[in-house]
Amino acid sequence: MEARSLIERKRDGGQIAPAEWRTLMQQYAAGDVPDYQMAALAMAIFFNGLTRDEIGALTDAMLHSGATLDLDHLRAGRVDKHSTGGVGDKVSLVLAPLVAACGVAVPMMSGRGLGHTGGTLDKLESIPGFRTDLTLAQATQQLESFGCALIGQTREIAPADRKLYALRDATSTVESIPLIAASIMSKKLAEGLTGLVLDVKRGSGAFLPELDRGLELARTMIELGADHGCPVVALLTAMDRPLGRACGNAIEVEESIMALRGEGPPDLMKVTYALGAEMLVLGAVATDRDDARRRMEVAISSGRAAARFQQIIEAQGGDPAVVDDPSLLPQANEVELFLADRAGVVAQVEPRAIGRGITALGGGRTKVDDIVDASVGFVITAQPGDVVRAGEPLATIFARDSAGVAAGRAALQTAVRIAEDAEPPLPLISHRVTEAGVQQWDDA
Amino acid sequence: MEARSLIERKRDGGQIAPAEWRTLMQQYAAGDVPDYQMAALAMAIFFNGLTRDEIGALTDAMLHSGATLDLDHLRAGRVDKHSTGGVGDKVSLVLAPLVAACGVAVPMMSGRGLGHTGGTLDKLESIPGFRTDLTLAQATQQLESFGCALIGQTREIAPADRKLYALRDATSTVESIPLIAASIMSKKLAEGLTGLVLDVKRGSGAFLPELDRGLELARTMIELGADHGCPVVALLTAMDRPLGRACGNAIEVEESIMALRGEGPPDLMKVTYALGAEMLVLGAVATDRDDARRRMEVAISSGRAAARFQQIIEAQGGDPAVVDDPSLLPQANEVELFLADRAGVVAQVEPRAIGRGITALGGGRTKVDDIVDASVGFVITAQPGDVVRAGEPLATIFARDSAGVAAGRAALQTAVRIAEDAEPPLPLISHRVTEAGVQQWDDA
Repeated sequence: MEARSLIERKRDGGQIAPAEWRTLMQQYAAGDVPDYQMAALAMAIFFNGLTRDEIGALTDAMLHSGATLDLDHLRAGRVDKHSTGGVGDKVSLVLAPLVAACGVAVPMMSGRGLGHTGGTLDKLESIPGFRTDLTLAQATQQLESFGCALIGQTREIAPADRKLYALRDATSTVESIPLIAASIMSKKLAEGLTGLVLDVKRGSGAFLPELDRGLELARTMIELGADHGCPVVALLTAMDRPLGRACGNAIEVEESIMALRGEGPPDLMKVTYALGAEMLVLGAVATDRDDARRRMEVAISSGRAAARFQQIIEAQGGDPAVVDDPSLLPQANEVELFLADRAGVVAQVEPRAIGRGITALGGGRTKVDDIVDASVGFVITAQPGDVVRAGEPLATIFARDSAGVAAGRAALQTAVRIAEDAEPPLPLISHRVTEAGVQQWDDA
Repeated sequence: MEARSLIERKRDGGQIAPAEWRTLMQQYAAGDVPDYQMAALAMAIFFNGLTRDEIGALTDAMLHSGATLDLDHLRAGRVDKHSTGGVGDKVSLVLAPLVAACGVAVPMMSGRGLGHTGGTLDKLESIPGFRTDLTLAQATQQLESFGCALIGQTREIAPADRKLYALRDATSTVESIPLIAASIMSKKLAEGLTGLVLDVKRGSGAFLPELDRGLELARTMIELGADHGCPVVALLTAMDRPLGRACGNAIEVEESIMALRGEGPPDLMKVTYALGAEMLVLGAVATDRDDARRRMEVAISSGRAAARFQQIIEAQGGDPAVVDDPSLLPQANEVELFLADRAGVVAQVEPRAIGRGITALGGGRTKVDDIVDASVGFVITAQPGDVVRAGEPLATIFARDSAGVAAGRAALQTAVRIAEDAEPPLPLISHRVTEAGVQQWDDA
């Protein structure tokens, strides 16, 4: 096989056959196809796309470049949730123990923060001692014991995807829906799932801000799942403002603990319950979404959900006492209020500016090997549409030092816009997408 | 400067500024921008093109990545010819000494054969002792003495272009008109030209078979030349059949020597005179193309053109006796006739099949480091439209051994098609393109 002829074919709108994808990705993982040829192919795919068959073949090729979790012996359904990422999106931390407490196994593989979005692994690692680098054998054992493992993409899983993802990041070919779908699904299928719920963010802080692109990703993932016997349900949710109040690593863990105790902010709980309901139905634990919702409420009110989080933290080497006493999480040196400089209506809380602000505080990454300060971030109580008085607190800045406070203040001044009046924000959940098609979300 | 953001901008249809091109190509030549980023950019350019300003800036950036010939002290105009390449295209070998004999300096930089097309350097090196690897100082001195130097792209000239060209070849991004134009022009401007004549081939054996793509390249090159004070004139010529009769290295040199002696085949002479007339007018030696034609005819009939070729060969280390006695060129072991297997009309002599046949005989390259056998090839006397009888000779095969003869015969059986009747071939010269626009070529 000559990579050059495959690049040419894709460039000219042709298709690459399954056996060709397999050989190509094997040779790429082995270093026999150089990065520059794969970069050219990725850019040709950016422009000309991939057919449904090609996305499936690429997914298989990446999936089979590494090891997979064999969980067929588990009695429970195995369902994961994937989010396209955002600011303040700590849903995974709440959802994984909550759904596991309801009887569905959650083999959750997460990533690190990069650019303006945070990463679940970084948040978890703010818990003293917590380790996310489990082997597949450890993850399997933990799934058997507690129904949940919170891990990163190990070297064993889909190495061809790891390599291609890093290359795409360096060559501006990340925003290609077929490549995004194949990348997500190659990892998710390696988890041995029986179902997947997708949280597709939309709005200014989302990776794919436009609704139509989000819907396209949802449909592509659903087709890909259907072709691999893994049903996928997608919800489109708002990322034109942060989700919940806390934006940062340790403070998001604290907010997640509060949510598991039944004291989470309403928007976070609504998204968590909506995604969790899909997981419980896909996992065959609930008969329908209303039944699922009731089961989750009981898991929280009974304390089972929080207790499950405690078990998982302990199993992964973390200090389980943080669940009862979140003050054991890393604490910022400087804590200062951010006040409204005028009266009016909160017109916008722009998530990208918040995300960049976290990075400016030292809590995010611009390069993959940056070290993250878990203690810093913002708790933003102002929400779009709120009427505020001058001098009223809008947010709290958690910083390392006074320079950090100043950087955080500057970020909030950009992000939080107060005006005479405000456009309504995006609906928190706007669409539900399944194999049957796209439905408008109905809150009633 | 971050290469990734430039790739993203070009991918999304934006423009890269001149200073950004300069930095990018400097960093690329120095190895600070990796091949994979440049490959992704090249593919984005393939899809989204470059503006006139961007092509100029890229050309400048590649030109200034290396050394240039300083020929301003020469009294004569300096004009080169560039062909987009074909089969049997030995025009450079005739044109360079002929035009130099008429008083225009010809600093001619040529390439090697690759794929189905031959290369002027390979042809020249079939002359025993001939060296094309002159330093810039040697080339300058030879231009002062004989008005002509026949050289390859040295390491000193446009190194960023060399590197990018090799990358484009490996990543299927060769067929991008802005990149082709910038690549050609960065080298031509390094020759210190006062004018350039372009031979754009069209038809099945051409690099860009379609007329509209050829015209687009011509227009792009003309604009690029105009922006750099180097007037460019382009002729569109036929490559739906080989040019002349000889196709191979040594036998093309022999045909070129015959042409310089006034005994060349009519199609070769017509293209040579047409391109040469433009060079003499651009070089301010002739008042118009008719005047130029007369000067070239006298240079040939007087023996000056052939004598000039002899001087150049001697200066570049070759055996000048080949001009008087072409049998001193490498001779094939096996020489066999190829006969018509049926009566009819020659409907096609397909140049790609001929070119691949030369490679099968050992006279071409599939990889850049293949060694070329100078002695092999074809002399094809049959031309599209000829009426032939069964058993009539159509061509002569020059091969290393009997296996070569068989391979050559198979290639000719594919290439030379005899039918009941034939479509007329493309006009030998069809269009003339200048800054003023495109004219149909008028043979009258």
